[in-house]
Amino acid sequence: MGGRMGGFFAGRTLVDLGHALRNGDESATGLVRRALESIDADRNADPTLNAFVTVDREGAEAAARRADAELASGVDRGPLHGVPVAVKDIIDVAGLPTGMGSAHFTGHVAETDAACVTMLRDAGAVIVGKTGTHEFAYGGTGDVSVNGPVRNPHDRERMSGGSSAGSAAAVAAGMVPLALGTDTGGSVRIPAAFCGIAGFKPAFDVLPTGGVFPLAASFDHVGLLAGSADDCRIAYQALTGLAEAAPSPVDGGAGPGGAPSVGWIEPLVADPEVVRVVRAAFPDAPSERLDLDEIRRVFRAIQESEAYDVHAERVEKAPELYQRVTLERLEQSARTPGWRFVRAVRARERIAREVAELLERYDLLALPTLPITAPRIGETEGPFGPHIPMLVSLTCPFNLVGLPALSVPVGTVHGMPVGAQLVTRRGAENILFEAAARLTDGRPG
Amino acid sequence: MGGRMGGFFAGRTLVDLGHALRNGDESATGLVRRALESIDADRNADPTLNAFVTVDREGAEAAARRADAELASGVDRGPLHGVPVAVKDIIDVAGLPTGMGSAHFTGHVAETDAACVTMLRDAGAVIVGKTGTHEFAYGGTGDVSVNGPVRNPHDRERMSGGSSAGSAAAVAAGMVPLALGTDTGGSVRIPAAFCGIAGFKPAFDVLPTGGVFPLAASFDHVGLLAGSADDCRIAYQALTGLAEAAPSPVDGGAGPGGAPSVGWIEPLVADPEVVRVVRAAFPDAPSERLDLDEIRRVFRAIQESEAYDVHAERVEKAPELYQRVTLERLEQSARTPGWRFVRAVRARERIAREVAELLERYDLLALPTLPITAPRIGETEGPFGPHIPMLVSLTCPFNLVGLPALSVPVGTVHGMPVGAQLVTRRGAENILFEAAARLTDGRPG
Repeated sequence: MGGRMGGFFAGRTLVDLGHALRNGDESATGLVRRALESIDADRNADPTLNAFVTVDREGAEAAARRADAELASGVDRGPLHGVPVAVKDIIDVAGLPTGMGSAHFTGHVAETDAACVTMLRDAGAVIVGKTGTHEFAYGGTGDVSVNGPVRNPHDRERMSGGSSAGSAAAVAAGMVPLALGTDTGGSVRIPAAFCGIAGFKPAFDVLPTGGVFPLAASFDHVGLLAGSADDCRIAYQALTGLAEAAPSPVDGGAGPGGAPSVGWIEPLVADPEVVRVVRAAFPDAPSERLDLDEIRRVFRAIQESEAYDVHAERVEKAPELYQRVTLERLEQSARTPGWRFVRAVRARERIAREVAELLERYDLLALPTLPITAPRIGETEGPFGPHIPMLVSLTCPFNLVGLPALSVPVGTVHGMPVGAQLVTRRGAENILFEAAARLTDGRPG
Repeated sequence: MGGRMGGFFAGRTLVDLGHALRNGDESATGLVRRALESIDADRNADPTLNAFVTVDREGAEAAARRADAELASGVDRGPLHGVPVAVKDIIDVAGLPTGMGSAHFTGHVAETDAACVTMLRDAGAVIVGKTGTHEFAYGGTGDVSVNGPVRNPHDRERMSGGSSAGSAAAVAAGMVPLALGTDTGGSVRIPAAFCGIAGFKPAFDVLPTGGVFPLAASFDHVGLLAGSADDCRIAYQALTGLAEAAPSPVDGGAGPGGAPSVGWIEPLVADPEVVRVVRAAFPDAPSERLDLDEIRRVFRAIQESEAYDVHAERVEKAPELYQRVTLERLEQSARTPGWRFVRAVRARERIAREVAELLERYDLLALPTLPITAPRIGETEGPFGPHIPMLVSLTCPFNLVGLPALSVPVGTVHGMPVGAQLVTRRGAENILFEAAARLTDGRPG
């Protein structure tokens, strides 16, 4: 595991960086240089993490100079001002290629910024480049892409997880303190958990998806990857203007010392070691059940129908440009019948009510982010079953119902990071972030 | 064509009946007796029209006695008070069988009234029985049912049209002055046009569908069949409380003499004689185009997916109970892919905007209700193509977009009735009824 967390930003929080920028210890141009050095250092490693597919040296340096000039003249855009950020390669950044991890988009350059990128720039962030994505974001492994696999900083023979693979690896390796990802079934939280960082998927539609290549419009979310839950909170607040309001736990829900009440969702199929480590972080949480098997089927019927709608013409005209695994998934997606979609939409409404009822009784729901630790690159099946359905099994429920969900590291199993997932109701994000910060503070090491 | 329009109610309007009931020339019990006599007379005909599948003599007579008692005591429920009405056999009437035209529901008796039946009863109507439906309302011919074909009063070797087959035949033959039907792709307007009566499909969701067996929930409408457009208006107003407000034509849209402006929608494939007769009723209407071919494909993708959702378990467990044609349609419906459904839902929104734009320029849109006259019973294809897609081609657009649409008789071709279809925006129903009444007044004979 040598070299992991080796980048400049490892262990440096947004608060640290903000202080350094404002007391003159650092400059935005200096931070960009640190980011580029960390990226370059890894590019020369063998094997490289392969986190970035495009690095925009000139654009980043120019943006950093502007950020420095603004700060010098008294214009302060807040906690992301002058902070280097990486952007997943299905999100448009004007003037840079958007490759989607696919040969279909070789040479494709975005003309305008995605709406979420505009928000980043307005908050003063400095975009350093585009990070590798699972092809068209249609997969949770991160090793299926025309750009090759993204590797896990904790073990380069293992998957980063995906689909926001490079964003997670770049943050975990300390190349940048913050990255944008997207999450349709878990694509922010999965690689965050596998790579030992924090990943936050806001409530549906809070961060706009304009300029983001769609996977399944009903479930597509823009999300954030950072070193800690608190950095996710700071970035989320900076982008959305969410006030740092005092959390308001549910009536009678607050535990001892005003701590929020937590309900534990029992995973269906999982590595018992992973479950044990995550469960230990919530020793007092009563066990609750969701029909995770049904939820996954409902999620899948909608996702497959919407995904094939996006790709039908490409599959027809140029199937050979897809990675084999992606083409197979799309061909299977084409076969989901319409009546199953109709049923799934109806079931979704019922499931949303069931989850909402749980969140009337608890401030938070807790469960593992993933049922396993990161598998080896290229592996499609492990001791607990095939990866494709399993990787999203604990994250996709909260895309189906569109609730805020956060993955935070809570320990290791077999030497690899394990993430706990916290879920709350829309509008209660502060409770989520506060509980996660407490969780991380309290963990050993 | 001997014997057609032979029933008591032929040529008697709701206004006529209302006067007779209130001046003592008729009683509700007398009207029920007239209805039952007309029904019985046809039952003994060879071949029978086969309009009714259940006749509720006792229930109808009891309801009529109550209606008479109420009127005598000064309780007047309005224009439907004491009026005999027939109800399509996919609509629940408490205590009577709801057969759906299918062996799947042999012996099935409804426990409660459908919401629209409750509205009928509250308006004082007397329900005399249930009328034959195309099996599960999934077809426009009216000759596919465990109860056998419903025949056209204008030529008993020809189809009534469907799926509200018996409701149209019963009104056209003068057995009742009014009937309830349902219309998912044209199932009120099609048999109304084939049988030479008026049929009105209100805007989506105006008449409730609770207690009506679903065909495709996005498109299912309850509608009205009567001898004239004016009777449809009277019944619609009685059920919904729609005020007899002065029509308000679109700005600058009113033609000479304050007549509403009309845009003509050109049919795609149609018997030119049918088009000529209907077009002659709107000589000054400018021609407009809708992509009727695309609209039918979009309609079909949604209808098939929703219909198979309703039937999946029945097809799996007891396919042999379906009529062969229905089973084939359902098996085909099962194969509509989910991604086509997703695309159709998106296309529907665009099409709704296109139609709404036309209705910003015109008070009304006019087109034939059907591209052909009633084919022979059992025929599946004619000189203008296969019947299944063709029969709904001009009616389904207004299920897709949920607008009020009315079919009124405007003449005959090959000796069979031809209907004109008028469409308007939600809330402008009075313009529609007034234009239709004027149209009917003006036609020869």
